[in-house]
Amino acid sequence: MFTRLKEILIGPPLVTQRMFEQKLNKVRALAAFSPDALSSIAYANQEIYLGLLIAGSAGLSMAWPIGLAIVIVLTIAAISYYQTIHAYPSGGGSYIVARSNLGTLPGLVAAGALMIDYILTAAVSLTAGVDAVASAFPVIWPYRVTLALILLALITLINMRGMRETGTLMSIPVYLFLFTYIPMLIYGVFVLWRDGPGELVTVAPVAIQPVTIFLLLHAFATGCTALTGIEAISNGVPAFKSPESDNAGKTLIIMAFLMGALFLGSIGLTQFLGVVAGSQETILSALARRILGHNSLYFIIQVSTMLILTVAANTSFADFPRVAALLAKDGFLPRQFTGLGDRLVFVNGIFILSIATALLIILFQGDTHLLVPLFAVGAFLAFTLSQSGMVLHWRREKGRYWQLKALANAIGALATGVTLMVVGITKFLDGAWITILIIPLLVIMFLRVRQHYRHVRKQLTMHGLPPTLKPFDKPRVVVPVSGVHRGIVDAMRYALTISNEVTGVYVEMSPGDSHEIKEKWNHFWPDIPLVIIPSPYRSVIQPLLDFLDQTDAEHNDGQQATVVLPEFVPAHWWQTILHNQTAWLLKAALLYHRRNLRYQRVIIDVPYYLHD
Amino acid sequence: MFTRLKEILIGPPLVTQRMFEQKLNKVRALAAFSPDALSSIAYANQEIYLGLLIAGSAGLSMAWPIGLAIVIVLTIAAISYYQTIHAYPSGGGSYIVARSNLGTLPGLVAAGALMIDYILTAAVSLTAGVDAVASAFPVIWPYRVTLALILLALITLINMRGMRETGTLMSIPVYLFLFTYIPMLIYGVFVLWRDGPGELVTVAPVAIQPVTIFLLLHAFATGCTALTGIEAISNGVPAFKSPESDNAGKTLIIMAFLMGALFLGSIGLTQFLGVVAGSQETILSALARRILGHNSLYFIIQVSTMLILTVAANTSFADFPRVAALLAKDGFLPRQFTGLGDRLVFVNGIFILSIATALLIILFQGDTHLLVPLFAVGAFLAFTLSQSGMVLHWRREKGRYWQLKALANAIGALATGVTLMVVGITKFLDGAWITILIIPLLVIMFLRVRQHYRHVRKQLTMHGLPPTLKPFDKPRVVVPVSGVHRGIVDAMRYALTISNEVTGVYVEMSPGDSHEIKEKWNHFWPDIPLVIIPSPYRSVIQPLLDFLDQTDAEHNDGQQATVVLPEFVPAHWWQTILHNQTAWLLKAALLYHRRNLRYQRVIIDVPYYLHD
Repeated sequence: MFTRLKEILIGPPLVTQRMFEQKLNKVRALAAFSPDALSSIAYANQEIYLGLLIAGSAGLSMAWPIGLAIVIVLTIAAISYYQTIHAYPSGGGSYIVARSNLGTLPGLVAAGALMIDYILTAAVSLTAGVDAVASAFPVIWPYRVTLALILLALITLINMRGMRETGTLMSIPVYLFLFTYIPMLIYGVFVLWRDGPGELVTVAPVAIQPVTIFLLLHAFATGCTALTGIEAISNGVPAFKSPESDNAGKTLIIMAFLMGALFLGSIGLTQFLGVVAGSQETILSALARRILGHNSLYFIIQVSTMLILTVAANTSFADFPRVAALLAKDGFLPRQFTGLGDRLVFVNGIFILSIATALLIILFQGDTHLLVPLFAVGAFLAFTLSQSGMVLHWRREKGRYWQLKALANAIGALATGVTLMVVGITKFLDGAWITILIIPLLVIMFLRVRQHYRHVRKQLTMHGLPPTLKPFDKPRVVVPVSGVHRGIVDAMRYALTISNEVTGVYVEMSPGDSHEIKEKWNHFWPDIPLVIIPSPYRSVIQPLLDFLDQTDAEHNDGQQATVVLPEFVPAHWWQTILHNQTAWLLKAALLYHRRNLRYQRVIIDVPYYLHD
Repeated sequence: MFTRLKEILIGPPLVTQRMFEQKLNKVRALAAFSPDALSSIAYANQEIYLGLLIAGSAGLSMAWPIGLAIVIVLTIAAISYYQTIHAYPSGGGSYIVARSNLGTLPGLVAAGALMIDYILTAAVSLTAGVDAVASAFPVIWPYRVTLALILLALITLINMRGMRETGTLMSIPVYLFLFTYIPMLIYGVFVLWRDGPGELVTVAPVAIQPVTIFLLLHAFATGCTALTGIEAISNGVPAFKSPESDNAGKTLIIMAFLMGALFLGSIGLTQFLGVVAGSQETILSALARRILGHNSLYFIIQVSTMLILTVAANTSFADFPRVAALLAKDGFLPRQFTGLGDRLVFVNGIFILSIATALLIILFQGDTHLLVPLFAVGAFLAFTLSQSGMVLHWRREKGRYWQLKALANAIGALATGVTLMVVGITKFLDGAWITILIIPLLVIMFLRVRQHYRHVRKQLTMHGLPPTLKPFDKPRVVVPVSGVHRGIVDAMRYALTISNEVTGVYVEMSPGDSHEIKEKWNHFWPDIPLVIIPSPYRSVIQPLLDFLDQTDAEHNDGQQATVVLPEFVPAHWWQTILHNQTAWLLKAALLYHRRNLRYQRVIIDVPYYLHD
């Protein structure tokens, strides 16, 4: 039944060969990789607006220049990443580029930084998406956390189904957004021409603070969250149809162009139409109402904003598991992250991302404004490392025009590096410190994981073992029993099959219990000793462990006694709670509380199947 | 480290003999069993007040007669239970009394009903306790759920420490409450005498509804939640110092008297002083402010109300686990509920109660007013069954004045039965339907659990087995390997020790992997066959299961091959996530997805201990 449910939700398993069929054309790839970049105008605009609002109309009139500055950074970053895509056709995520050019440590820093930012992208996109509809339908305001979590569950499920189907499903909201938002902005320009510019001075609240350099840099920094999606494509080149690099590069250019247009268009219109927002509304919602009026077109815009933001969370689901799998392949994360599931997706990466995002949404109560300060630090750190790595890459590779290419990436590194400093400093106290703290912790974890795997590999070598490995001596066997009943019969028979030296053990919980058991035992196994251990503290496990230690010490024969465990197996899984989990607890205690590392303790499970 | 933490929180283990030392004298017993009854004036008064408020001053002036009616039911119930205590000195909970006199089914209904009510007592007491302090300190209003959960965690921990220490700790709030509340009420009477009666007409809001019979019965029904704690003592007789019945009976009378005095005193003063409450305040808080003024005495009263309500939740922790243990002893609940923990308390019962209470608090958002309608149905159903059972008990036992005793219990049964009808009908739509729905589901569960245990017992009988049980034939052995490395060496040696017929199996995830492995294998075990199974869907478990079925079918030798599993055991538990849990998953699949019930599949764990 469980398998059936899984098949309905996730789809039937796919064979490994189909991996290479699961490729995206440009239209689908734009839908799969761009939503983060395109939709980020929603929260980036909002944060710039909130940051400038406290300086009144003087502050708000700085939105357009700040928007221009951000688009300049966008252009530089796009050019840089265009080069990366062509230099690393098998996927040039920051981790790969930084690691292969700058070394392991910078690579890990880039990877850790990016992974944090992917989680934040998912969280911020979902909360901002909910904000967009909550602006149009204020009744849902109190349910923001629940709603964001429902959207997250949906996205997780869709991703579990696999890449191609994800692309198909995701295309709809992306193109719905583009085909409603761009016409709206064009119509907005017409409205501006028809009505003339609005007067911010008359509508903006009184300034609480003057326009300072810090205020402007802070607004710029929060606005830079818009750029976090730019590296998505370079990391996902292998997902494109062949020729991968060409297709990926073209898609990047289209994406950067659309993003710049949306961003400048919306921020410009907001300022020049003199739009301000109420306290329970986003600025983009206010802009849409100003251009379209409070009608069904406006509602379509808000819903499509929410949809593309939901899909933006999907960018993380495409990239986070891929980075995790790369790290795992190099031994920096548990092996399980490399495992392709039934549907050829990295299920464990998807799972971990989903959990982490849910935790963030719950901890920050679904509040976009509280989450944003943690955001963008990781991305810009990764960008800077990756662009610096590209400079070294060109110097090493040489080739045609290499100085020019290196210069382009150097400008990219400089621009993203300066932005990183601005973001890190101006938002440090607001929450950026959390990200700055977590990145080194992640790197330490990566290194410790690799160290563990290396130790294990060393321990596992067969080198130095003699070519003929002899069997052990015949095992001594101990059978813990809970009474004399059918459930122990097969266990006793098996023990007697493999050993000449079998002992039964019974733990006596209340004094006197053992008389009847001893009698029955002697009837069936008169030649086998049954040891009774009293247990005044009513524990079963500890007395057994003590007995085993003691009997091993007495025999001192170069082995630990094998434990044969009679285990009840009920007909239905839920019936397991109806039986004491003694066998299970004993197994765990024997395996994991290792008490003697020289010889292993072998455990033999002899199941006794209960009928219905 | 874990053990150490547990010892600090819970205390060192106690030997079974100390069970009989853990007994309570009357002063401690009153503190352990009465808080529910005494503190219930907090929510009972509040609900009566809210129920009557909608009928304005005409409604509120019916509070006193309703209070009198409830105290009459209280008196009848107390007399009934006094008799039960003496008739059942070993603990006469409703389950025991109903089962032994009316039969199994009524007994189970009573038990299920009571268990639900114990959970509700814990939930309602905690939320009402938080309401009491939130009335005095409105800042904590938004954190009611969190606060209630913290109190719950505290109570759980204290109960895990065991009965006697629970009694000691609980005494303080109970006596603090009594020694502040009763003087306050006496002073309230003086205030009433000094100031003369207040005019409800001038302060009460306009009536939205006339005073109907339904309104009065509904107020009576919600007020009856005050009585739910009355049966606590009869269920806990064995916890008293000897002579148990005498001490328990006396404690019951003291408790009933205190409860009646507190209830009538507070409800009467509220009405005659003409007190009404604001929207974010309980009526008892308003009464205390009216009598004492807004000063530190008032704050002490509110805090001590919260404390006794917190401790009231403790009544459930004393009784729920005991009822669960009784049911488990009779086979109606999983055996684990009979297990005394290190500290001689029924840990599993405490644990389940704690989880269920937490869920209720979270689901109902910590709102007492929403929880109360679910409440009291269970208790009055159990009371009615128990009192009816007592009537039959006297008729069977006869003895001195048996007709008189039977009459007293018959009156008790009638009074509680009528109250049950009133409660069930007037609060049905508000939430009582939930309780009425769950009780039969619980009873069905109890019966199914017992059925399962009976089937198992039948299957386990040794009856009919020959007195000499032969060993099996030598086992055939299959060793699944993940490669040729140190980790499989001991497993191979053990397999060769116990069997002459050993086969290695390797699941090939990507084609071509197996060449190198085959070569290494032939170097070390040239005589042992290694089977390679391709796995196009990248699953390990399913191909192995298929192989085992196939090889068993081929051999057809009256056994299933024994599986010897090489298992990595890391040095630290957290390192287990760094290794594929294939061994674990395979074990679970072999044990629980049984594919052949005729012969068992034996599983042998050969651990390989990894160093640090």
